[in-house]
Amino acid sequence: MKILVLGGDGYLGWPTAMHLAERGHEVTVVDNYLRRNLARATRSEALMPTPNLHERAEIHQAHGGRPIDVVIGDCTDYRMMAALFERIRPACVVHYAEQPSAPYSMIGYDEARTTLHNNLTATFNVIWAVLEHAPSCHVVKLGTMGEYGTPNIDIEEGWIEIEHKGRKDRFLFPRAAGSLYHTTKVLDTDLLWFYVRTFGLSVTDLMQGPVYGLSTPACDRDPRLAPNFHYDDIFGTVVNRFLVQAVAGVPLTVYGKGGQTRGYLNLLDTLQCVTLAAEKPAAPGELRIFNQFTETFTVQELAERVRDAGAAVGLDVKIDHVENPRKEAEDHYYNPVHKGLVELGLTPHPMTREVLVDMLERVLRHRDRIDERKIHPRVRWR
Amino acid sequence: MKILVLGGDGYLGWPTAMHLAERGHEVTVVDNYLRRNLARATRSEALMPTPNLHERAEIHQAHGGRPIDVVIGDCTDYRMMAALFERIRPACVVHYAEQPSAPYSMIGYDEARTTLHNNLTATFNVIWAVLEHAPSCHVVKLGTMGEYGTPNIDIEEGWIEIEHKGRKDRFLFPRAAGSLYHTTKVLDTDLLWFYVRTFGLSVTDLMQGPVYGLSTPACDRDPRLAPNFHYDDIFGTVVNRFLVQAVAGVPLTVYGKGGQTRGYLNLLDTLQCVTLAAEKPAAPGELRIFNQFTETFTVQELAERVRDAGAAVGLDVKIDHVENPRKEAEDHYYNPVHKGLVELGLTPHPMTREVLVDMLERVLRHRDRIDERKIHPRVRWR
Repeated sequence: MKILVLGGDGYLGWPTAMHLAERGHEVTVVDNYLRRNLARATRSEALMPTPNLHERAEIHQAHGGRPIDVVIGDCTDYRMMAALFERIRPACVVHYAEQPSAPYSMIGYDEARTTLHNNLTATFNVIWAVLEHAPSCHVVKLGTMGEYGTPNIDIEEGWIEIEHKGRKDRFLFPRAAGSLYHTTKVLDTDLLWFYVRTFGLSVTDLMQGPVYGLSTPACDRDPRLAPNFHYDDIFGTVVNRFLVQAVAGVPLTVYGKGGQTRGYLNLLDTLQCVTLAAEKPAAPGELRIFNQFTETFTVQELAERVRDAGAAVGLDVKIDHVENPRKEAEDHYYNPVHKGLVELGLTPHPMTREVLVDMLERVLRHRDRIDERKIHPRVRWR
Repeated sequence: MKILVLGGDGYLGWPTAMHLAERGHEVTVVDNYLRRNLARATRSEALMPTPNLHERAEIHQAHGGRPIDVVIGDCTDYRMMAALFERIRPACVVHYAEQPSAPYSMIGYDEARTTLHNNLTATFNVIWAVLEHAPSCHVVKLGTMGEYGTPNIDIEEGWIEIEHKGRKDRFLFPRAAGSLYHTTKVLDTDLLWFYVRTFGLSVTDLMQGPVYGLSTPACDRDPRLAPNFHYDDIFGTVVNRFLVQAVAGVPLTVYGKGGQTRGYLNLLDTLQCVTLAAEKPAAPGELRIFNQFTETFTVQELAERVRDAGAAVGLDVKIDHVENPRKEAEDHYYNPVHKGLVELGLTPHPMTREVLVDMLERVLRHRDRIDERKIHPRVRWR
């Protein structure tokens, strides 16, 4: 089927695009390199240099990969989006086109404004491009588990039935996110839900946890096809960051007590989840929400797992508890449901020692490229 | 105290500004005439012409009113907002600066985009101007009862305690609004709640129902000080619209079955509520939410009340059920709590026949200005 991957240059976007193309879909990736530009501006470049999207698509094809069309464009520009949807009339759009960093969104007014404007306008434009030019197109939207925050009740998959004073109704599960970035995803969900129930759009909203991983079958064909791998405090996710710290010989920077619990998943499982969602779409008028992660860990547990994997490859990994730059509960209840994607067919890849060792070995090849100044928290939730 | 009234040219903004000035506060009104411009563009001009803000402030003062400073500026322009807060350092900001029409927000992409951009950016700029230039300033934000939609459970005042699988927590009451305009107010609430809990802002969010009324002590000093009174399908609220239809001899346009129930209030009570909120501020780190209305009616009941009031002044008022241009439940449960403002000191002005007769008499003076083309629904939730 015809699939648009918005934000196709991202850590998840590019591996997703190759994966969907290899499944036989006609894939067009769209990106304006916002994340590359913001990473460069904040000295948060990825560990390995990555070719641009046109080059990546050519390298992918040179290795026998199925073609991927590349559009360099800004999803906040409705003229571009409308023309794209009118030309392609996709059956599915995978929407990753958001500023993805929580710390970035907390730097100051300009960064907060960029995050709010970019993320909400991109989502708004996706909605309208679908309404006006591809009304049966299924929207697969990347949300985040962070939308829910850390409530003191079990987190259901997107919805909750509330019984109150003897009456009942079903609502979006309450959301209270920990950064402006995560809050923009809450706003996205509200906006999507309005247009779904009013105009019958078909939407799958994936509440994803932090992703780790460097390896997918298509990425492994050529080092230049690797996902862009950030290890800094702004664009790096926690597992990737810890692995680079382990290789660099820098103590792992656990924020505060380290009791913060989150749901994690392997990059391979992101590809599975997005593919399952795309190939088994939501019904018209349905906002289908899945909690997209496979295992929960505290940050302390993650650090210990990385330390153990480090020992297996001869690294002496230390763990350091640094002052928490974020405002978040460091010790809290966390019991999110995550059944929907397994029922749809997800086979999880757990975070085994082998998986972490393989990642460490890949990072070790780039040891000399690690810039220690990128490792320590630079952004505080003031 | 120093109070900024953003959106001070509006139906509520201008009477609020005069009222707060008469209470002895140092009031500055800010507006960019967006609503005037949109009303002109959609042929939805108010019943009586209203002088501009500078003129209004002069007329108010000529009648012995306390001075009101006027700033013509766009609240989506952060440079303007930041400079304003830095110069004035208000103790309170009353934020009405939003595109206020649900039908307008449902016309098409451009109108939806304008609504989303204007409303969310204005709120975002208020938050940041407070954070950066007046951190102890209390934000009084006008939300809407429409944020909640029409759930099948009792509507609490902003918050709800949920017991789920044997555990409890307190959350924002679930929201599911009926138009994009109302949805932007949901997004505002989410955004305010994030910044309140992260940075300790002090915010009162008023979930207001539809307001009716033409008369306040300050407005009544001079016809040129009257609130701008829209009676069209786009900018007119339902009671005001029915009164003009009654005077024009056009059957009252009840949408669908007319079982839609909402909470209403007199303009005098809006002034009371906003003043009470401003003079008894929320605590730092508190998002205080009140449901701001005094009585609930179905649309059918409102139409019948207007018919009865019409009979008292010799008008033969007919009621017509027209196809509902909106997507909304026409027969639903509705039981919202509204205690907080009464506890704070609100003395409600109920919708008596005398109140409606007084409004009809005021409208009758402008009978020749009524344009019947503005009365029937022009915007459909497609």
